[in-house]
Amino acid sequence: MNLLNTEQAAAFLRGCSDVHILIHRSPDGDCIGSGYALYAVLRAMGIRARVCCDDPIPPMYRFLTEDAAFEDFDPQTVIAVDVADLQLLGGLRERYEGRIDLCIDHHISNTGYAKSNYWNPEASAACEVLYALFKAMQLTLTEQIAMCLYTGMATDTGCFKFSNAGAETFAAVADLKRSFDLPYASLNRLLFDVKSKGRMALDARLMQSVRMSADDRVALLYLPYAWMEELKVSSDETDGVSNLPLQIAGVEIGILVKEQSEGGYRVSMRAGDHADVSAICRQFGGGGHVKAGGCSIAEGQADAVCNMLMAAAEATLQS
Amino acid sequence: MNLLNTEQAAAFLRGCSDVHILIHRSPDGDCIGSGYALYAVLRAMGIRARVCCDDPIPPMYRFLTEDAAFEDFDPQTVIAVDVADLQLLGGLRERYEGRIDLCIDHHISNTGYAKSNYWNPEASAACEVLYALFKAMQLTLTEQIAMCLYTGMATDTGCFKFSNAGAETFAAVADLKRSFDLPYASLNRLLFDVKSKGRMALDARLMQSVRMSADDRVALLYLPYAWMEELKVSSDETDGVSNLPLQIAGVEIGILVKEQSEGGYRVSMRAGDHADVSAICRQFGGGGHVKAGGCSIAEGQADAVCNMLMAAAEATLQS
Repeated sequence: MNLLNTEQAAAFLRGCSDVHILIHRSPDGDCIGSGYALYAVLRAMGIRARVCCDDPIPPMYRFLTEDAAFEDFDPQTVIAVDVADLQLLGGLRERYEGRIDLCIDHHISNTGYAKSNYWNPEASAACEVLYALFKAMQLTLTEQIAMCLYTGMATDTGCFKFSNAGAETFAAVADLKRSFDLPYASLNRLLFDVKSKGRMALDARLMQSVRMSADDRVALLYLPYAWMEELKVSSDETDGVSNLPLQIAGVEIGILVKEQSEGGYRVSMRAGDHADVSAICRQFGGGGHVKAGGCSIAEGQADAVCNMLMAAAEATLQS
Repeated sequence: MNLLNTEQAAAFLRGCSDVHILIHRSPDGDCIGSGYALYAVLRAMGIRARVCCDDPIPPMYRFLTEDAAFEDFDPQTVIAVDVADLQLLGGLRERYEGRIDLCIDHHISNTGYAKSNYWNPEASAACEVLYALFKAMQLTLTEQIAMCLYTGMATDTGCFKFSNAGAETFAAVADLKRSFDLPYASLNRLLFDVKSKGRMALDARLMQSVRMSADDRVALLYLPYAWMEELKVSSDETDGVSNLPLQIAGVEIGILVKEQSEGGYRVSMRAGDHADVSAICRQFGGGGHVKAGGCSIAEGQADAVCNMLMAAAEATLQS
């Protein structure tokens, strides 16, 4: 991987022109925040720029993007932010592959597909990487840029709750809070707490029907497709449901089984401090990380599928 | 109020002896964290000390207190931490009233009952006030002290989510994270995510029985005492239940009505971005802050009490 230091990355930004900024498909707070922060900084430097994404920006993040006004132009420079792998560009890959001049990222798994990289795998978020760069460049930020950077760091760390929220993350947010009196609490409420009425009802129903075994160390939630229809909850509103079972004290393996509209089941597993769920998911043709995995089950009665998954989880805890 | 500056507070700590440290009844993460951090610092300075509380330490905070070994002794010095008002001492008030030499606090509502005060109403937590003092004194902290201070700042800010999490809070945590490699993520999971099976079931039941009005801008949860008994949920496990109604998208005023074991109701109100709930609570003899208030209702049928509170909330939104 061709790595730039901070000085080289700063020189790159000062020298670029007509920039297409690429962010990943299924855009989240960090890629939107870093993409639009970079866009605003380049514009303020008098450089034409736009953000390109294969998917629409989710409504909850529109407050970061509504000030942007993009022109159509052919790029002289292409910069990817928060994109670990070319595949994550989705439909944009074909147009930009081999043409990406700089990648700004924090993923340890970054494949090094860009000609140059400004990369810090210790950073919590691409927004933390960008913040360090902007600070070194002594740029004057705006409230909108600060909001973008804050959103990226907050969302990628679960509001500063996960292990990736490091000393530098906290120091960066301290800096932002000293300079910009943003409505941080309202922003956090929007980003982390607010659920639709339907989603709230869905969570309640799921928690009331939790199945537990192995001395309450395994917890399973079964979500029938009919509930989604009845409560008018869309699929992209169910982010985070898979984390619910692990919130019960003592649970080591949490399982969510979602019946699919087309039949079959999508399974998500989460592990507490000691278990490894990727091994369980591999038994059923899936995979993932030690603490978060998934698999698909093509057919079977819901009860039988749930029993089978719970038995596999119990066996893992006993081994 | 007799205020000490940082130098004076440092001199006070260096000169004190045989210290009783008082924390408030129904102890929370901040008073436990600040009480036990101060205890450990005084012990390291060779000063005899103990922490005194009218209530037992809740099991979830025992990791902060299990290293402490207290002797019985008569105090030469009495220091209250995180205690805004003498009433919050509960049964300890009689013994210590008029004898409290120093109060270390961050509450804007502190009544100034102590002979001297080291007080910063801008700080998120008493632990943030103490951290600044320890830093100015150039004390060498231990992992245990860092854990206490982190816990106080994290719990009083809802894991850095609330508006009281300021630049100095973030800067203090950045310092702690640079110096101490604690299991912050596991700690956060314990402090913020994990709920007992009973509490999970209680939340589910409450959310299924939510009452909404004023175009879904007012949401009320009613918690019958019988549910607490049936689901074996203790009163100190219900922290945070009062925040549930405000998590529903669009809700501006969230109300929790808890039936008390001895009869009557305890009411907590929370406001979103625009409402002021302290004014509503004052109508019923209570009070609090703009965004979080409470009151007690001595008698009435549950339904009538809930309807009365919802009507008051609706009227506030219309005015």
